Amino acid sequence: MARHSVREPLIDAALETLQLSGFNGCAVQDITQAAGVPKGSFYNHFESKEAIALMALERFWELGAERRSLLSDTTIDPVVRLQKHFKALSDAVIAQEFRKGCLIGNFSSEMAKNSDIRTRLATIYTQWGKAIASCVKEASAAKRVIPRLPAETIANFLINAWEGSVLRAKVEQDRAALDQFNQAVFASFFT
Amino acid sequence: MARHSVREPLIDAALETLQLSGFNGCAVQDITQAAGVPKGSFYNHFESKEAIALMALERFWELGAERRSLLSDTTIDPVVRLQKHFKALSDAVIAQEFRKGCLIGNFSSEMAKNSDIRTRLATIYTQWGKAIASCVKEASAAKRVIPRLPAETIANFLINAWEGSVLRAKVEQDRAALDQFNQAVFASFFT
Repeated sequence: MARHSVREPLIDAALETLQLSGFNGCAVQDITQAAGVPKGSFYNHFESKEAIALMALERFWELGAERRSLLSDTTIDPVVRLQKHFKALSDAVIAQEFRKGCLIGNFSSEMAKNSDIRTRLATIYTQWGKAIASCVKEASAAKRVIPRLPAETIANFLINAWEGSVLRAKVEQDRAALDQFNQAVFASFFT
Repeated sequence: MARHSVREPLIDAALETLQLSGFNGCAVQDITQAAGVPKGSFYNHFESKEAIALMALERFWELGAERRSLLSDTTIDPVVRLQKHFKALSDAVIAQEFRKGCLIGNFSSEMAKNSDIRTRLATIYTQWGKAIASCVKEASAAKRVIPRLPAETIANFLINAWEGSVLRAKVEQDRAALDQFNQAVFASFFT
């Protein structure tokens, strides 16, 4: 029981620390310090920084479930659903004042050599892509999609464009790139 | 003279090392080792890892001058110029087998807290955006641009979407994201 009570706060602290400093920019000690637990207890729960980073990525993905659920609400127009989804993502980036960006994009840049995290990132992109593609297909059936491209191509492009826009917002410490994403996407892909 | 002869190889080695390992993923010693010079000589030329990283970013940007010059060749159709530009960027990412990605995107993720590098990244994005926007304006005058948006909005969106696509290609170790970028952009924005 005692073990369990430290494990969860450690994952929360790892998520916060990894988002602010990046994987290579923090040490296990920064995580245990942020969690307020002794460094020695870390290795009772996690084999390595890689291992807890994978759990932190998992938690980050779970925390986004509500924003992804906006995509599957079939009572709402599919284009409006996509708008709501990216609006919710924008709001989250703005709320943390551009200090964190998106852990998926950050890890994509930093962790491409680490096979476990890289593999999980690839499946996250695939899962997210499927949710977006399903919305794009509905929009397409309603003749709301402008370019004649497979829904999967559009969905992947939107996700990648989003991640790049978050990077840019982080550099400029400004929401302009997120607004430009929304303007460009909803003027060019959907009607 | 001797000083100069070590400075340039150090910047080259820094660029290679920073592209492969990221800023926080390498130490000054990795750079001096890659350059084949004693660690002690580093500080005769550079104050810090940050200082050489800024020089490496500068070199990376200079090395891309030829690919950007494709954008200003007014003897060629402006949409074809944009296609050639992004094709040249894709070729460069593919040629290094997705191991490096793009230093601009990587540093955008990692260095948002470092003010000198962040400031330079912001001006790089601005310069690149101007070169793209100028092409988009010419395309617009020729009625080749589909969405009714300012050229600057389209230009910034394309750059950000490109950076996100490179991240994705790095994760998947595959060119699909780069191809999807080209398909989506040239089907949706230009005619």
